[in-house]
Amino acid sequence: METGADLDGFERVLRRGNVSLVSDSMLDAYRRVREHSRKICAPLETEDYVIQSMPDVSPTRWHLAHTTWFFETFCLKNLPDYEPEQPAFEVLFNSYYNSVGEQFPRDRRGLLSRPTVAEVWRYRDQVDEAMFELLARSDRDSIVTDEVLRTGMNHEQQHQELMLTDLLHVFSCNPLHPVYCDDAVTDCDPVEEVRWIESPVERIEPVGFDESSHGLFCFDNELPRHRALLSPHAIANRLVTNGEYLEFIEDGGYDDPSYWLSAGWATVQSEGWRAPMYWHLGEEGWHQFTLAGLRPVDEKAPVCHVSYFEADAFARWSGCRLPTEFEWEIAVRDSRESMIDAFGTRWQWTASDYAPYPKYAAPEGAIGEYNGKFMCGQKVLRGSSVATPEGHARLTYRNFFPPSMRWQFCGIRLATDLE
Amino acid sequence: METGADLDGFERVLRRGNVSLVSDSMLDAYRRVREHSRKICAPLETEDYVIQSMPDVSPTRWHLAHTTWFFETFCLKNLPDYEPEQPAFEVLFNSYYNSVGEQFPRDRRGLLSRPTVAEVWRYRDQVDEAMFELLARSDRDSIVTDEVLRTGMNHEQQHQELMLTDLLHVFSCNPLHPVYCDDAVTDCDPVEEVRWIESPVERIEPVGFDESSHGLFCFDNELPRHRALLSPHAIANRLVTNGEYLEFIEDGGYDDPSYWLSAGWATVQSEGWRAPMYWHLGEEGWHQFTLAGLRPVDEKAPVCHVSYFEADAFARWSGCRLPTEFEWEIAVRDSRESMIDAFGTRWQWTASDYAPYPKYAAPEGAIGEYNGKFMCGQKVLRGSSVATPEGHARLTYRNFFPPSMRWQFCGIRLATDLE
Amino acid sequence: METGADLDGFERVLRRGNVSLVSDSMLDAYRRVREHSRKICAPLETEDYVIQSMPDVSPTRWHLAHTTWFFETFCLKNLPDYEPEQPAFEVLFNSYYNSVGEQFPRDRRGLLSRPTVAEVWRYRDQVDEAMFELLARSDRDSIVTDEVLRTGMNHEQQHQELMLTDLLHVFSCNPLHPVYCDDAVTDCDPVEEVRWIESPVERIEPVGFDESSHGLFCFDNELPRHRALLSPHAIANRLVTNGEYLEFIEDGGYDDPSYWLSAGWATVQSEGWRAPMYWHLGEEGWHQFTLAGLRPVDEKAPVCHVSYFEADAFARWSGCRLPTEFEWEIAVRDSRESMIDAFGTRWQWTASDYAPYPKYAAPEGAIGEYNGKFMCGQKVLRGSSVATPEGHARLTYRNFFPPSMRWQFCGIRLATDLE
Amino acid sequence: METGADLDGFERVLRRGNVSLVSDSMLDAYRRVREHSRKICAPLETEDYVIQSMPDVSPTRWHLAHTTWFFETFCLKNLPDYEPEQPAFEVLFNSYYNSVGEQFPRDRRGLLSRPTVAEVWRYRDQVDEAMFELLARSDRDSIVTDEVLRTGMNHEQQHQELMLTDLLHVFSCNPLHPVYCDDAVTDCDPVEEVRWIESPVERIEPVGFDESSHGLFCFDNELPRHRALLSPHAIANRLVTNGEYLEFIEDGGYDDPSYWLSAGWATVQSEGWRAPMYWHLGEEGWHQFTLAGLRPVDEKAPVCHVSYFEADAFARWSGCRLPTEFEWEIAVRDSRESMIDAFGTRWQWTASDYAPYPKYAAPEGAIGEYNGKFMCGQKVLRGSSVATPEGHARLTYRNFFPPSMRWQFCGIRLATDLE
Repeated sequence: METGADLDGFERVLRRGNVSLVSDSMLDAYRRVREHSRKICAPLETEDYVIQSMPDVSPTRWHLAHTTWFFETFCLKNLPDYEPEQPAFEVLFNSYYNSVGEQFPRDRRGLLSRPTVAEVWRYRDQVDEAMFELLARSDRDSIVTDEVLRTGMNHEQQHQELMLTDLLHVFSCNPLHPVYCDDAVTDCDPVEEVRWIESPVERIEPVGFDESSHGLFCFDNELPRHRALLSPHAIANRLVTNGEYLEFIEDGGYDDPSYWLSAGWATVQSEGWRAPMYWHLGEEGWHQFTLAGLRPVDEKAPVCHVSYFEADAFARWSGCRLPTEFEWEIAVRDSRESMIDAFGTRWQWTASDYAPYPKYAAPEGAIGEYNGKFMCGQKVLRGSSVATPEGHARLTYRNFFPPSMRWQFCGIRLATDLE
Repeated sequence: METGADLDGFERVLRRGNVSLVSDSMLDAYRRVREHSRKICAPLETEDYVIQSMPDVSPTRWHLAHTTWFFETFCLKNLPDYEPEQPAFEVLFNSYYNSVGEQFPRDRRGLLSRPTVAEVWRYRDQVDEAMFELLARSDRDSIVTDEVLRTGMNHEQQHQELMLTDLLHVFSCNPLHPVYCDDAVTDCDPVEEVRWIESPVERIEPVGFDESSHGLFCFDNELPRHRALLSPHAIANRLVTNGEYLEFIEDGGYDDPSYWLSAGWATVQSEGWRAPMYWHLGEEGWHQFTLAGLRPVDEKAPVCHVSYFEADAFARWSGCRLPTEFEWEIAVRDSRESMIDAFGTRWQWTASDYAPYPKYAAPEGAIGEYNGKFMCGQKVLRGSSVATPEGHARLTYRNFFPPSMRWQFCGIRLATDLE
Repeated sequence: METGADLDGFERVLRRGNVSLVSDSMLDAYRRVREHSRKICAPLETEDYVIQSMPDVSPTRWHLAHTTWFFETFCLKNLPDYEPEQPAFEVLFNSYYNSVGEQFPRDRRGLLSRPTVAEVWRYRDQVDEAMFELLARSDRDSIVTDEVLRTGMNHEQQHQELMLTDLLHVFSCNPLHPVYCDDAVTDCDPVEEVRWIESPVERIEPVGFDESSHGLFCFDNELPRHRALLSPHAIANRLVTNGEYLEFIEDGGYDDPSYWLSAGWATVQSEGWRAPMYWHLGEEGWHQFTLAGLRPVDEKAPVCHVSYFEADAFARWSGCRLPTEFEWEIAVRDSRESMIDAFGTRWQWTASDYAPYPKYAAPEGAIGEYNGKFMCGQKVLRGSSVATPEGHARLTYRNFFPPSMRWQFCGIRLATDLE
Repeated sequence: METGADLDGFERVLRRGNVSLVSDSMLDAYRRVREHSRKICAPLETEDYVIQSMPDVSPTRWHLAHTTWFFETFCLKNLPDYEPEQPAFEVLFNSYYNSVGEQFPRDRRGLLSRPTVAEVWRYRDQVDEAMFELLARSDRDSIVTDEVLRTGMNHEQQHQELMLTDLLHVFSCNPLHPVYCDDAVTDCDPVEEVRWIESPVERIEPVGFDESSHGLFCFDNELPRHRALLSPHAIANRLVTNGEYLEFIEDGGYDDPSYWLSAGWATVQSEGWRAPMYWHLGEEGWHQFTLAGLRPVDEKAPVCHVSYFEADAFARWSGCRLPTEFEWEIAVRDSRESMIDAFGTRWQWTASDYAPYPKYAAPEGAIGEYNGKFMCGQKVLRGSSVATPEGHARLTYRNFFPPSMRWQFCGIRLATDLE
């Protein structure tokens, strides 16, 4: 993972021994990715695996089974003699692949008490055993490509991040304030004054994934590499802090429609937003519910759990704007040293709508449903977060969510136009 | 329990060793009621305790904790030195007692993974231990009355029935068709031709609970005993069967608005009802999801899981009507031998709205919230069901639910006017 | 109309020349009923006829057309050579008669700009002309019975009241506070101290419509006349006033769940009720939106536009209860002199659920859909209101609405149990 | 208006005498724009002005008043001695300008019967008279700029198009199929085989409004003019026809999720879409509800009333894609002769998200709320439709709507990548 941030606490717990998908053998890589999911679950009680606290959240057990289903469906079923031990799981743990078959409705994942957590772990073990065998075969390439295997591992890593964001949401609904892990400190080191990285002339730059510089794997939405036109602009070298965001709140940011997109203002009204998600104002000031429980808001840490609407309103209040995804990519490529918190901190909202790159073509078949069909009504986020597994993020990575989404670990980096 | 029905299977499993609240000592009674809740949970996995499959359903774990909270709140807290070990449970497990304090929202009970099931069992053990001590004290009467203790035990018995109805709903949402208990046969003995019990003249009869004939305990809604006027009528000696209900379905009963109340017809349309709840029409005919899994519909068994709307429409289609609650009560009192399936089979919808008896007064304080405030928009059901704990039902018992409710074990008894 | 109230203003405008359905010839009666609808519309602009301000409200134009459709469908279509000029109106203006055919959805009545108001008046004229001819025929009886004609006229009178209640709601949505009629004063004369009319012993009394004492017409829900059992009780001789209701408000009535039915309390919360409908608290105290515009609340006038939930909560706060419909009927029958405001003031909520009388049978055919199918989830109101056309109400009349309804002219009469 | 299409029928009726905002004097231009609104209303009954058939639709009367309010608010109120005759209209007819003050809720516009249509026309006359005076003043420039006047006129033209689309929707809800205007034929001339206009090399082109070539006025969202990078591609010289769209339908286009964006497929399911809006399949084949009533679908005419989701799915089914807004702009600029149906036919969905141009800055004050705050979650449409007033559209015009929107006159132009 390309981050110079000084990770500690939570990060150390979660990332130790994590996979480098680049240098390891495929078998080692697979083993480590799978092992990491187990580590994430170490602090959990059986009951924690089962809850779906809102439609966007999936039960942990579902994440564990769905990532397993992915390997079974796209790898093991290529084996002529493979027999699924649990054919019913094909429907239960399909997320959204229409071409693979029927799906159990997403918002009803929390209604299932069976298969039990123990049965899901057993399912993982069965599939892992079959995968280990497959990965050791000399003709493995003819059965399943590196590409598909890497997709499966990256897919599981995405769900590892989701497990943490979803668990945070589940615990946040509980007035007992359960603690996932005392050590899960998600705040970061004190920050200095912001500096602006300038790009003072119009320029054309190549963007998107390039195998020779960026590694062995990318998702289809990072392709094709192509050329983009950048206007003169500057981009902040660090993220917006809680302290800065508090100024926006205290200046009436949530009361003044002139800072907000129309859809954002409507959301502020209908949802009653007054602060980032998980913030609570008590007698002892602002607190924030975290994986380590309820903690005072740290003014020096980067703000987290804000929607695109809030990021955009904050930027307008600041007299700035959000960067485009290509401004972000080129700044990080060219000024990696300065952009110390680009990775491993907060996903960073960009001004860019999530759209296909020129000449983008979704892959054939079910894998083609991975990304392309979501290219509507969402915003691109760049970088990665404290919850992203090590080795998963990269310069050209495109995360995406609807503009009202707040339950992911997402923050704000500013940009501004230059004459 | 006043039932002559030949119970077997499911019933034997669930009812063996159950309490007779009348003859036992208070301590024995308490112990047996509490023990019965544990028996109901014997077949469950931890995950099964956690799910709330619709707003009306509560997680099993919640039932276990709420019934415990009831004893803690209304008995143990009268002890001057009692210290709750878990003060947070006061809010979490209060159902609807405004006068006791704040409540956790009913429809969010399924969002909690903590306290764990093991912690809830521990909570039960703590409260039981304190209750055993209290019940053994010579001055127990001055701390908590028999009335309150019996209310607590009857309250837990009501939740024992709800645990089974709720678990049936939870399992029914799962395409794996989990089986609660293979032995949980909820069908009844073959039935004979219906006979009509006639009451040919207008009469005034006493109704409602009478301590001298009906035992030591009743709920407040069964009081005061008063006199009711009955018109000439006849009432069926047995319940409507699945076979008879199938004739209604096959005759287009669900397609013809002339059989239905206006609100019933609207519900048929909006919910897409075509048969009782849990019925499925497959290639091999009608099946019914039960606590014993998916089973063929038994034409001889009494129909179950129908709403008031369906009971009323079926009655109209039959050229009959539903009995009033007093017609039911007097028929069972006067012709107990003939009404063999009055108890232990299906709750029986009556034509009566759930209203207070003349001069009804809710008790003072929190206990007064038990029944009275629900006397609006609901229908009275009489009798008891296969899921009702032994010893809980009685002649004057008034169950009540909204007319669209189907997830309880409820069926149909017919009546008709006489000239 | 059986009212001794000293009506003035609004009432005089609306009722002058209204029909006495009893003494007039059928032709005169028809003519006067139809004419009264036109009078109600005199103050309206074309635009006022078109609006549906909530699903329960119908556009005035729809009321005019639907009452006409009723005569066309149930009278004129019996003529062998009758040809409707507007066959499309059969669907458009059918309200809920499934047996007559398809219906245009109730909550979409406000989406229609055509037929225009002028066309609806033309439709009325066409039907009236045909009706005049029919009513003058010597063989009229063999084509349409008195019963059906009287039903049609009473039906139109019910819609005349609805026109006024619906217009009040339509105007209330408009921040310009339009005035229907300056003269439409709906407040009543100053009241004196309440007196209680006692019925100190249990008694059996005949209730329901009796042709020999009550006139020529009733709705089917007032039949059969039968005997009812009354407990010892007392009933107030006059309605609850705005001043008395203000005390309830100021005593925190809307903040204390102990006064409320559970469903009522939920409605108070979800709807944000703080006072009767149409009340506004401004700098100059409480005002009420009326057909005469925004007026200060008159503390001496009977409270209006309260739901059953509010009437019931007020009664509980008062240490009283609401009367049953039979207590109301017998008190008015026996003590007509004392109950001066029984009619022509406010519809009076009773504690009685709207249920069929013993041996009630809905008429055959479409007319049978008039009342019976609504006998679920509603409460009976007795008396009549300032908006009820003269000659429409009677001792045994049963109005009915769901317990949350407030837009009708409904108020509160108290009762209490006697030992 | 830059269209070579041979307009007839509907167009001739609506556009005759319409304004050329470029060449006329400001006073003439104002007069003609205002006059055109009146022409659109010529076929209407009073009732037609009042209906709001869905939240997106506004009553015609509201359009007439709101456009008037715009001139009053942004022009007349600059006059030191101007006194609004109807101060209440400030709230009632403000659409979404937070900085101007309170707004009446958009989805409640259909609840108002007052002010009447006649009063709204009077309001227009009052404002027009004051505007005529203002426009004749020699110091007019110091009171209101050309820019604001042109914005007001263009704003009214936008609402003129909305009046027609909204009226079509209102009439479509009426089973009587009212006809707005027999002459309102919205179909177009027969089309020939599609030809592809190629742009075979990557190029940088200036896009956005340029005063010297494009005229005196544009909206702020067309600025700043800037340079855009275009990939090699080809664009169709004509729109997709009903006949071609029928092939998509008949090939199961609405049944196969692989053609659809995920959000599009969800909409197809939830809305039950099977064809473009206003299409009905009857015994005599496909018909389409139009402003001229119900008409058979003309296979040669360009398809209309499709959402972005449908346009995008059709393109994918065709093996093509939608053009970006800049591909569209450059093709029309460079090949105007070939793109005969670019204007005056259907708004054309582009693949481009509605985003600000580089260095876009919203104007100060209320006018700044015109466009910028809607730049989220919408798609750009280019060209213009049969309902667009003559002289309103231009090469750089950016229309925008959410991707599920269908009630505007919008169609499909295809594009494809070149190697």
